[in-house]
Amino acid sequence: MSLFTIRASINRREYMTPKCVWLTGLPGAGKTTLASGLVKKLLESGLNCIHLDGDIIRKGMNSDLGFSMVDRRENIRRVAELSHLLLQNHSIPICSFIAPTREIREMAGTIIGKALFLEVFIDTPKEICALRDTKGMYAKALKGEISEFTGISSPWEPPLDPSLTIHTLNRTVIECLDELMAFALKNINT
Amino acid sequence: MSLFTIRASINRREYMTPKCVWLTGLPGAGKTTLASGLVKKLLESGLNCIHLDGDIIRKGMNSDLGFSMVDRRENIRRVAELSHLLLQNHSIPICSFIAPTREIREMAGTIIGKALFLEVFIDTPKEICALRDTKGMYAKALKGEISEFTGISSPWEPPLDPSLTIHTLNRTVIECLDELMAFALKNINT
Repeated sequence: MSLFTIRASINRREYMTPKCVWLTGLPGAGKTTLASGLVKKLLESGLNCIHLDGDIIRKGMNSDLGFSMVDRRENIRRVAELSHLLLQNHSIPICSFIAPTREIREMAGTIIGKALFLEVFIDTPKEICALRDTKGMYAKALKGEISEFTGISSPWEPPLDPSLTIHTLNRTVIECLDELMAFALKNINT
Repeated sequence: MSLFTIRASINRREYMTPKCVWLTGLPGAGKTTLASGLVKKLLESGLNCIHLDGDIIRKGMNSDLGFSMVDRRENIRRVAELSHLLLQNHSIPICSFIAPTREIREMAGTIIGKALFLEVFIDTPKEICALRDTKGMYAKALKGEISEFTGISSPWEPPLDPSLTIHTLNRTVIECLDELMAFALKNINT
């Protein structure tokens, strides 16, 4: 390891203000796809970031929780506390979680710190999410085979004033991702 | 950001194998002090690491848990799942947790992956921990004011075959930290 590498690394920390990028939206809106793409781009730019994804967190760290509103709130509370910790450790948390209600996202923002919480609404119409239905979940929910499914049998409240709204209809993943990356870089680098 | 910085950062990821450094030991053994010092040294070396500390995690992410053996196990399970996730995100988790029994630490190692789990025993005699008593906890536990206190009224099983044992008796923090840093660098860099 050269001294230059060490110095470069330390300098980059000094001029960067890590913030939490939180992607919210309906199931199937494209949150995980866009968050994964953003993480890859940020890592390639040499920035430290950690991808916290709903499905992965629920299989691991939060596997004790279900889908009642109380458990959904606890799921987001823990992830928000973790994001706060990651920011203190100079890492950028990229969160892809439904976080279905305004109150729940408000709580996340309060824990993380309002100025460090970038709420990104992945705005895909419910009909399109149901058509894509990448995991076959909408079909099951509409048949009543899954209870407490966001947007069908569990509440969904779109953000009223997000930091960024990405409309995915009639646009490619690459186009949406370029918009997200430009937003992240602009907001993370002070 | 220069192209050199980006390349250096990418190259460093390629030759580094992130592993989890887990400091275990009695309350007051010196886990948090040594873990904090290690994190500072690793960050100064340009390595991405995240400090997961028992007290901080219990005040934040795991604030729903108490100190029964079931809750202690759940506390460590979540932190082990999180460490696994951090490793997948190219970050080095530095964990300072009592993790009181062999079975609990065995579970942590299984979740993280045996080859990626570096168990470091901070070996400080109980009498010395009680003498230091930085948080006044031993005094309260001995008076019976705190129940379920590790080493007094809750089990403590020292590791039988740790990756490293640091004896802190009659040694300075700097000496112990140098030993820990040398061990971490040797094991993290392949």
